[in-house]
Amino acid sequence: MSAQITAASNPNRVQDMKSETRPDLAPRPLPLTGVRVLDLGQVFQGPYAAFLMAMAGAEVIKIEPPHGDMSRRRARDGDYPFRALNGCKRGVVLNLKTERGRELLLDLSRSADVLLENFAPAVMPRLGLGPEDFFEVNPRLVYARASGFGSSGPYADKRALDLTIQAMSGLMSTTGEPGGRPLKTGAPVADFMSGAHFYGAIVTALFERERTGRGRVVEVSMLEALFAPLLPAAGHAYESGHAPQRTGNRHVADSYVPFDTFECADGWVTIVCATDEHWARLTVAMERSDLAADDSLCRLHGRIARIEAVTDEIGKWTSERTRAEVSAICERHQVPAAPLRDVSEVLADPHLHARGFLTNHLTDGGPVALPNSPMRYDESEPRALNPPPALGEHTEAVLTELCGLDRSAVEELRRMRVI
Amino acid sequence: MSAQITAASNPNRVQDMKSETRPDLAPRPLPLTGVRVLDLGQVFQGPYAAFLMAMAGAEVIKIEPPHGDMSRRRARDGDYPFRALNGCKRGVVLNLKTERGRELLLDLSRSADVLLENFAPAVMPRLGLGPEDFFEVNPRLVYARASGFGSSGPYADKRALDLTIQAMSGLMSTTGEPGGRPLKTGAPVADFMSGAHFYGAIVTALFERERTGRGRVVEVSMLEALFAPLLPAAGHAYESGHAPQRTGNRHVADSYVPFDTFECADGWVTIVCATDEHWARLTVAMERSDLAADDSLCRLHGRIARIEAVTDEIGKWTSERTRAEVSAICERHQVPAAPLRDVSEVLADPHLHARGFLTNHLTDGGPVALPNSPMRYDESEPRALNPPPALGEHTEAVLTELCGLDRSAVEELRRMRVI
Repeated sequence: MSAQITAASNPNRVQDMKSETRPDLAPRPLPLTGVRVLDLGQVFQGPYAAFLMAMAGAEVIKIEPPHGDMSRRRARDGDYPFRALNGCKRGVVLNLKTERGRELLLDLSRSADVLLENFAPAVMPRLGLGPEDFFEVNPRLVYARASGFGSSGPYADKRALDLTIQAMSGLMSTTGEPGGRPLKTGAPVADFMSGAHFYGAIVTALFERERTGRGRVVEVSMLEALFAPLLPAAGHAYESGHAPQRTGNRHVADSYVPFDTFECADGWVTIVCATDEHWARLTVAMERSDLAADDSLCRLHGRIARIEAVTDEIGKWTSERTRAEVSAICERHQVPAAPLRDVSEVLADPHLHARGFLTNHLTDGGPVALPNSPMRYDESEPRALNPPPALGEHTEAVLTELCGLDRSAVEELRRMRVI
Repeated sequence: MSAQITAASNPNRVQDMKSETRPDLAPRPLPLTGVRVLDLGQVFQGPYAAFLMAMAGAEVIKIEPPHGDMSRRRARDGDYPFRALNGCKRGVVLNLKTERGRELLLDLSRSADVLLENFAPAVMPRLGLGPEDFFEVNPRLVYARASGFGSSGPYADKRALDLTIQAMSGLMSTTGEPGGRPLKTGAPVADFMSGAHFYGAIVTALFERERTGRGRVVEVSMLEALFAPLLPAAGHAYESGHAPQRTGNRHVADSYVPFDTFECADGWVTIVCATDEHWARLTVAMERSDLAADDSLCRLHGRIARIEAVTDEIGKWTSERTRAEVSAICERHQVPAAPLRDVSEVLADPHLHARGFLTNHLTDGGPVALPNSPMRYDESEPRALNPPPALGEHTEAVLTELCGLDRSAVEELRRMRVI
């Protein structure tokens, strides 16, 4: 299962995939063209929202402290996450611990449409950079803040990491083997779930501003953003009077049987019979007329009563086949099934490359596949991915363009360690 | 850990929590006020995006087939997920298998801003209801489609369920015990992650339309929407040359030690030392000056080398205390820690109730806590949650208001089983 990384075809920076455009029309600009964003985001939550804006056409200026976003270099996942989340952004260094640095940020906000940050809620107001300070300068600004728990309520000042929120949201309590301990999801879903909502809130305020001419404070918290996936578990808790037990890979309430992973000769597949019809088709796929003829299994309640026997029969069948074989047979018989893939396989996925979602890029460390935005706009070309800025790469250009500074003023700022 | 459901204070429908508004200003309307949405969504992905629109102020008309959205009544999680995702919507039944039903949908789209659907990609075009059919009637419409794999590429016609995407995205490969099998996340994160992106794509096109006057097709797929959380695992794969192993509750790359769950007298807590400073504070919190004095542990690489010993020492300390005690001590010493909660505890969370994210409602089945949107807009009151519509509750009202039908025409449609 741990396949070596294999770069898909065409490992160069050229974007050879195009969106499907209507042939009779010239490509349209991306929808956020002309929008300027000051991105004070760090690590995943803020930078992801700003990345989604960049890929929708916005001009994103990433503003970093003198030591840089901490995700520029991390222990063992290298700079790949940083590279993936900060392409198509300009890079400016501003030391917000200096008076002049703060003045420059307020000055930059004059021509900006959005300022987004995901510091702890107290940080920006303590610097004299609360929303009101920006609205005095630019009442059309969308001031967007994200954090672990939000800026109000009893937990407002608690520190939050992805793992914290996975634990407190209830997510971990639903994940794990029956009778086993609760487990985290191995990927930081709290960071990215809140980042996706953060993007939505920001664009909503931009929409409104087109109608009213006024900016807004918008806010997203990780804990609230991760609540919705828990709705089925919450429903089960209300129905049964207690929080649901962990069920491994089976359905939280055995509402579907089978609904599980099954071991193959080369890994795992998932198979789900969401309807009795799926079960009937699965017995044909497995060439098991005896199971098809078993009246006690043709309805869900019967399969629930004999779930272990059903699981064993399917497992015997899959164990003698590869993931690809089982998936193909099930697809032919219209039974929902899927190979369980590792991340190396996903990075080389022909579907994601064919759609232009993943494109290959050469880096110092070798070829990597980088993602575009999951939000697609017909008739527009996807934005070509540029590398992320070096630390402070565009400081001088941005301060001269947007703050009207000349070269010697920039030199002076550098000497004073403001930039 | 499986606490009985306890409704938090005030189990009635009155919204007693208010957003923090600036005292000098009257509340502002919610940002999507005046936007009309035709919601053909089913189960979670589509209905969640439409719910987020409703809670941001939009008028959402949920359009169901004669047998209703299948999530109206599900096996064991009752109608709670349906109730939570379809409040503040109007309900219309339209039989799109009839000519007249399709005509009425096209007619409704004349006054709509958005039509969203998450059928398999082939369904709407096959009915003669592809995007172009709607643009002929209303070129300002945002036509929004979501699916498992998107409408192009080799997997376009594959069926997808949340579990399918968890398997194919690589997410399951990252979750589980070291040496154990891959596990699903116990909550449908693929459905909701794509639902959140779907919302963002729709509002982006609405923003653009304010500037250009033109609608758009926007598209989100579950597989692409679930990619970003895999970035750290992908980075690890590129650095090491192979997909990462599962690590239980530890960090994917042991980049932080400790970063784990620890058993308490009454459940589990997570404790993370993201910096050496956190470790120093943790030794103080544990009153373990011997650990503080151990030079080999004060730096990350030393703790990585002795990860099992570090884990044992912390585990001994937590096992003699409750989750609340450990969390409180860590908070006092500014060490990131959090209690691992089950969904019943989350539903009664004082923080989520204090912020007005959860509010209590009386239903036939008893009191339940229902969520608002995680997207918050300062200066506006959150929209009060209304119950979801009964099947077809507003069919007559909507068809008379928006399609100009009179009562006898509606009766005729009913007789013909169009509505």
